[in-house]
Amino acid sequence: MRRVRIVGIGMGVEHLTAEAETAIRGVDYVIAAQKSDEDPLLEARRALCRDLGVPLVAVPDPPRDRDAPVDYPGAVRDWHDARAAAYERVLLERDGDAAFLVWGDPAFYDSTIRIVEQVAERGRVPFSYDVVPGVSAPQLLAARHRLVLHEVGRPVLFTTGRRLLEDVAAGHDNLVVLLDGRLVCALLDPDTWDVWWGANLGAPGERLVAGRLGAVLPEISAARAAAAAEAGWVMDVYLLRRA
Amino acid sequence: MRRVRIVGIGMGVEHLTAEAETAIRGVDYVIAAQKSDEDPLLEARRALCRDLGVPLVAVPDPPRDRDAPVDYPGAVRDWHDARAAAYERVLLERDGDAAFLVWGDPAFYDSTIRIVEQVAERGRVPFSYDVVPGVSAPQLLAARHRLVLHEVGRPVLFTTGRRLLEDVAAGHDNLVVLLDGRLVCALLDPDTWDVWWGANLGAPGERLVAGRLGAVLPEISAARAAAAAEAGWVMDVYLLRRA
Ligand SMILES: C[S@@+](CC[C@H](N)C(=O)[O-])C[C@H]1O[C@@H](n2cnc3c(N)ncnc32)[C@H](O)[C@@H]1O
Ligand SMILES: C[S@@+](CC[C@H](N)C(=O)[O-])C[C@H]1O[C@@H](n2cnc3c(N)ncnc32)[C@H](O)[C@@H]1O
Repeated sequence: MRRVRIVGIGMGVEHLTAEAETAIRGVDYVIAAQKSDEDPLLEARRALCRDLGVPLVAVPDPPRDRDAPVDYPGAVRDWHDARAAAYERVLLERDGDAAFLVWGDPAFYDSTIRIVEQVAERGRVPFSYDVVPGVSAPQLLAARHRLVLHEVGRPVLFTTGRRLLEDVAAGHDNLVVLLDGRLVCALLDPDTWDVWWGANLGAPGERLVAGRLGAVLPEISAARAAAAAEAGWVMDVYLLRRA
Repeated sequence: MRRVRIVGIGMGVEHLTAEAETAIRGVDYVIAAQKSDEDPLLEARRALCRDLGVPLVAVPDPPRDRDAPVDYPGAVRDWHDARAAAYERVLLERDGDAAFLVWGDPAFYDSTIRIVEQVAERGRVPFSYDVVPGVSAPQLLAARHRLVLHEVGRPVLFTTGRRLLEDVAAGHDNLVVLLDGRLVCALLDPDTWDVWWGANLGAPGERLVAGRLGAVLPEISAARAAAAAEAGWVMDVYLLRRA
């Protein structure tokens, strides 16, 4: 039976686990999503595969309808269907075991597991698959700020920019926020929240800012712009805690 | 300036990152908490240090008042104080750079960062410290079950057995539960929750169970007992999602 491995590669080569390295070395080729013509994260994966001596097949991401806020799950579903079809094509064309390299950990806000599941359900390519965990962006954020993500014995909510206001309204006081390109936290009370923020963690342009929300928001905006200018892209994540 | 490094070692040697390995090789000695006379997790760390050629200093954990539910944070604080004093003693007695090896990731339900911070604040041993992230138990749970920890674009709450009923009462429908030695989930409605459970992940006695809560609870209890019998200890973690 062919094997497909979904491998979390962490936030850079220094976060590759021994298990992930062995998994990648053991497959015949790697499949990597290509977000754009010049996808910097693709370049990083290409370099990794070169180092490990495994060929990489780049699969251009099908276009995604980002302006469909009403039927958000529906838009995501269509996009997953299109990606499943694209990956299936690669597996049909190329024999052997394959690995998908996932930035961070496949268990956090990543669609690779669901898409591979979908390819398996289509039933045209028989294969077994497994998942190798990796260090995620929130964990590197915590490490850089030397933080535990929660108070002693208390919970932490992992959520998205899109949901933040709703989650705060529901009473959450300790949240890790991913997928927030618009700094939605700027809409919260500037005096009652502390924030630990990081951009491009483990990558070119890395920036860190921490402090009382209202006091550091301008610094965060500036750091975000500086990261984008330095790296040509920016991704950020932050922990919000009621002061 | 002396360096102290707080290193997440993941859930077993296969999860050691390149960064963690370099960090451990680079220190003069490793400090590891010893929970009991025969601490199996200490043995694993001892083997790791032997492999990496670094001496290990075991520090017996001060006794902890586990029967203090009313003043829980207070009991934890006293315990942290006693641990800080114990680690400070080691650093005073032994010169050079030191590393603390943390099971999983130091950012999740682990006290090492807070205790090292406390040692630094006491001011008797001057040192700088940093944190190296590692793969956590919830991530290995997700990988083993080939799960994303949340639905598309939705949040996930990381919490403890002690808080579970409260968090469910507050309306949470997707929770990762750690530190639950009593399977508190058995008190929830057996027909409306799905559970993905794992014990001794990445270690001797590993067990996995998944399904509708009511249907698999007996299987989980049996698997928990089997893991404890096989390894001599048991730690478990689970994802609960409203069906
Ligand atoms: C699609 S999610 C993928 C998360 C990833 N699977 C993980 O384990 O971290 C993308 C989000 O992760 C966060 N992220 C990913 N890489 C990052 C980086 N290098 N620095 C800061 N945040 C990052 C950002 O919040 C971004 O919007
Ligand atoms: C004190 S917390 C430490 C968590 C750790 N820092 C991490 O990153 O996973 C201990 C809890 O983690 C979970 N845990 C730790 N090791 C585990 C294992 N091997 N299998 C299952 N759960 C584990 C259990 O819920 C346990 O009660």
